[in-house]
Amino acid sequence: MTHIFLYGPPGTGKSTVGRKLALNLKLPFIDLDRVIETNAGISIPQIMEQQGEPAFRDLESAALKDLIAEGESVVALGGGALLRQENRAFVESNGKVVLLVAELATLLERLQGESGNRPLLTGDLQEKLSTLLAKRGEHYNSFSMLIHVDGKTAEQNARQVQDILGWHHLSAMGEYDVRVGEIKTLPFASSIIVTDENVARHYLEKIQTVLQVSKSVVIPAGEAHKNLETISHLWKAFLENGLDRKSTVIALGGGVIGDMAGFAAATYMRGINWIGIPTTLLSMVDASLGGKTGFDLPEGKNLIGSFYPPKLVLADPSLLLTLPERELISGMAEVVKHGIISDPELFELCSRGMDWVKNNLEEIVKRAMAVKIKVIEEDPYEKGFRAALNLGHTVGHAVELVSKFELRHGEAIAIGIVAEAKYAARVGLAGEGLVEAVTESFKALGLPIQIPEAMPREEIIQAMRVDKKKNAKAIRFALPVEIGRVELVDVSDLESVIIE
Amino acid sequence: MTHIFLYGPPGTGKSTVGRKLALNLKLPFIDLDRVIETNAGISIPQIMEQQGEPAFRDLESAALKDLIAEGESVVALGGGALLRQENRAFVESNGKVVLLVAELATLLERLQGESGNRPLLTGDLQEKLSTLLAKRGEHYNSFSMLIHVDGKTAEQNARQVQDILGWHHLSAMGEYDVRVGEIKTLPFASSIIVTDENVARHYLEKIQTVLQVSKSVVIPAGEAHKNLETISHLWKAFLENGLDRKSTVIALGGGVIGDMAGFAAATYMRGINWIGIPTTLLSMVDASLGGKTGFDLPEGKNLIGSFYPPKLVLADPSLLLTLPERELISGMAEVVKHGIISDPELFELCSRGMDWVKNNLEEIVKRAMAVKIKVIEEDPYEKGFRAALNLGHTVGHAVELVSKFELRHGEAIAIGIVAEAKYAARVGLAGEGLVEAVTESFKALGLPIQIPEAMPREEIIQAMRVDKKKNAKAIRFALPVEIGRVELVDVSDLESVIIE
Repeated sequence: MTHIFLYGPPGTGKSTVGRKLALNLKLPFIDLDRVIETNAGISIPQIMEQQGEPAFRDLESAALKDLIAEGESVVALGGGALLRQENRAFVESNGKVVLLVAELATLLERLQGESGNRPLLTGDLQEKLSTLLAKRGEHYNSFSMLIHVDGKTAEQNARQVQDILGWHHLSAMGEYDVRVGEIKTLPFASSIIVTDENVARHYLEKIQTVLQVSKSVVIPAGEAHKNLETISHLWKAFLENGLDRKSTVIALGGGVIGDMAGFAAATYMRGINWIGIPTTLLSMVDASLGGKTGFDLPEGKNLIGSFYPPKLVLADPSLLLTLPERELISGMAEVVKHGIISDPELFELCSRGMDWVKNNLEEIVKRAMAVKIKVIEEDPYEKGFRAALNLGHTVGHAVELVSKFELRHGEAIAIGIVAEAKYAARVGLAGEGLVEAVTESFKALGLPIQIPEAMPREEIIQAMRVDKKKNAKAIRFALPVEIGRVELVDVSDLESVIIE
Repeated sequence: MTHIFLYGPPGTGKSTVGRKLALNLKLPFIDLDRVIETNAGISIPQIMEQQGEPAFRDLESAALKDLIAEGESVVALGGGALLRQENRAFVESNGKVVLLVAELATLLERLQGESGNRPLLTGDLQEKLSTLLAKRGEHYNSFSMLIHVDGKTAEQNARQVQDILGWHHLSAMGEYDVRVGEIKTLPFASSIIVTDENVARHYLEKIQTVLQVSKSVVIPAGEAHKNLETISHLWKAFLENGLDRKSTVIALGGGVIGDMAGFAAATYMRGINWIGIPTTLLSMVDASLGGKTGFDLPEGKNLIGSFYPPKLVLADPSLLLTLPERELISGMAEVVKHGIISDPELFELCSRGMDWVKNNLEEIVKRAMAVKIKVIEEDPYEKGFRAALNLGHTVGHAVELVSKFELRHGEAIAIGIVAEAKYAARVGLAGEGLVEAVTESFKALGLPIQIPEAMPREEIIQAMRVDKKKNAKAIRFALPVEIGRVELVDVSDLESVIIE
């Protein structure tokens, strides 16, 4: 794994933000300047005065290398710690550097009255700071990952660092971590990879090599195999491979693999650890998060299962590059949905179309995951607001079913979102502008926006009823109100939703 | 359900103990005197002075009847609240009365300085109190369930009330209640009873009538059917009976029924509520507590399962009266084990033999359950001390297996406990007195104490190894040190445990 280094000019709040960040991520926090002082037994101003800046930089380099042990941590660096190329190379190969930047006025305000501790800023603060920023301007500009801290709380800045890194710690249901990025080593020894034939062809060997996991079990691909027979097969494979209570299962694949490997892990010896490595856009931004595991019975989807989150979700957007175009586009329907639920900027990015999306998959994945994480942390067991994630799904599921799965999940969801948006506009919950924005966005991505002409409307209504509780008089819809907000509304007249 | 009424002379701490008790049991607490004052708008001394004692007693009767609504609560009564036969009949038909008693000296000490609030005790406290106790002596003596509060904290007294009632609230794994006593109504509507053919013959109709649950599913009896086929059958029965996420399953039977109905509930629609009604001594004092659910694979016992406690365990000792003698005796092995682990008094009671046990099943059940609850609340997921419950089980399981289950579980455990006690004595952990006490106790109950002569010792050793992790060099034993205490010890030379 890797470390987070917070860097930037004096006064940007690296220590304060770092402390919040470490708390959010349940990681250790290291303040490099405090470590140097502890090692030296004197303060940094004293070191500077007695030994000069080069000597201080030597101490800084030494402290840095001492600190970076195994595992993950959040490190607040001194404002000039990466001026030395050697230090920079070292931290960049051991983690991610996030630069905190601020307007001069913000920095001045924060540094007023505490300049005694800042040896390079003693004297006329404004002049010294301007000079220092000018001198280091090129240096700071050479870092690509940055956040602007002006006018925000430390907590808001910490959250923004998490969002741009794609690092999260979830605790509302179980305790688990989410990391977006290239798959390297794992924080714990793992025992077996569960994947399907399709994914195995592309990635199994590579992931086995990277993670140094020799054992694997490959199951047939597709929802048709999401059944008890496959689950039994997994249990037997775990036994044959000698897995015990301390073993860890890696689920490498889309939603079906995550659901089944997760359920097999949830029930093997009363529950062992598992790690999710989603390989489809849909599973990265949706299925891998939230702890739902299970399989289908002939009587219906997901009838058997448990809430049992993995210990870690590793989402590597580069794995999406081998996805068939239609699969990637289908996944974008859920991304757009997350934008509509609570991220207008994400919605705008989606509207740029598939070319832009393909070149910016990492940003898309990080933003869409952040929305889902926010929702499930608020309401892990779907007692309330988690139902917002059903946007487009009441109509969408029904359309998917009636199409006999000829429509992909995401395609059906796009159709469902448009239908539900139109209904929301008809009943006055949303404006026409919303319908147009949603429609345009799906069009730009190549997603369908209308229920196929030939599909019998009565069958769709019937399917909506069956999908929910049989005796329910009304069905609860998550309806879009504006981009960034949905409302839960009970609707009893289902015809009115899909018949314009 | 029912209410707990704390009663007894002034100064016994009914309100303080009641508040603790309500907190432990997560129930509402009602202080009847405070309610009367709130209703009247004046204090009890004022009521007494202005309206006289009969008027106060009228208010008391009225308040009592107003208060007792649906559900459960802890009620602290005034010291004379049940003098009226009408009140007494009312509370006895709505719950359990526990009397708190104390020495006169204890009462005097507690009442010093606060007698202003006790209208019946104004003046010479000692004289008034003695007179009152003498006058009410016969009345207080007519209550059978009582605890002595002298020299104990309110928390200790509250725990003792719980133990003699057999009422507990567990929260270390899930949140659930335990109630020992006659089965009456349930706190929530329930949907289906799962039971086996044997239990159904004796109790299904009766329990269905009492609990007003019309649906049931009856499965074949015995460990041989604790498999995936039966689990699948249960899932299908839940579907056919229209169970949804808000349904509740009742597991009526021994350990096998609890394990399977619990697991089916744990995984149906990602987990629905269940209630355990154990019908064997073994399942009351052991299997029904601790949240372990699951089933066997051909490769081994309990290989698939989950930690998923019921919402409620209802243990009715009167159900044990129809048990075959051998089954009841077998269950006593686990009771003795609980005594050895941490309740010397329970151990002593067991040593009185089966006749005494059969006439005092309720006390036996309550005490044995209290021990298990204490252990699992400390260590729900068996990371440490819960392993103490393995006392006798390492040898016992092996002997049970090698006997091809001709020995019942409890019989094998008795043999295992004796073997492990002897080993503990040989290595100097325990004295010879312990071995003798344990042996005598099992003999008094009619349980076996020796590994059958003909049973090949190598097979037992082999079975002990297979039972645990294959690559483990040593096996962790829970060894008895004295009655009331066990220690966890790693043993690598398994021969030395069973060969004397």
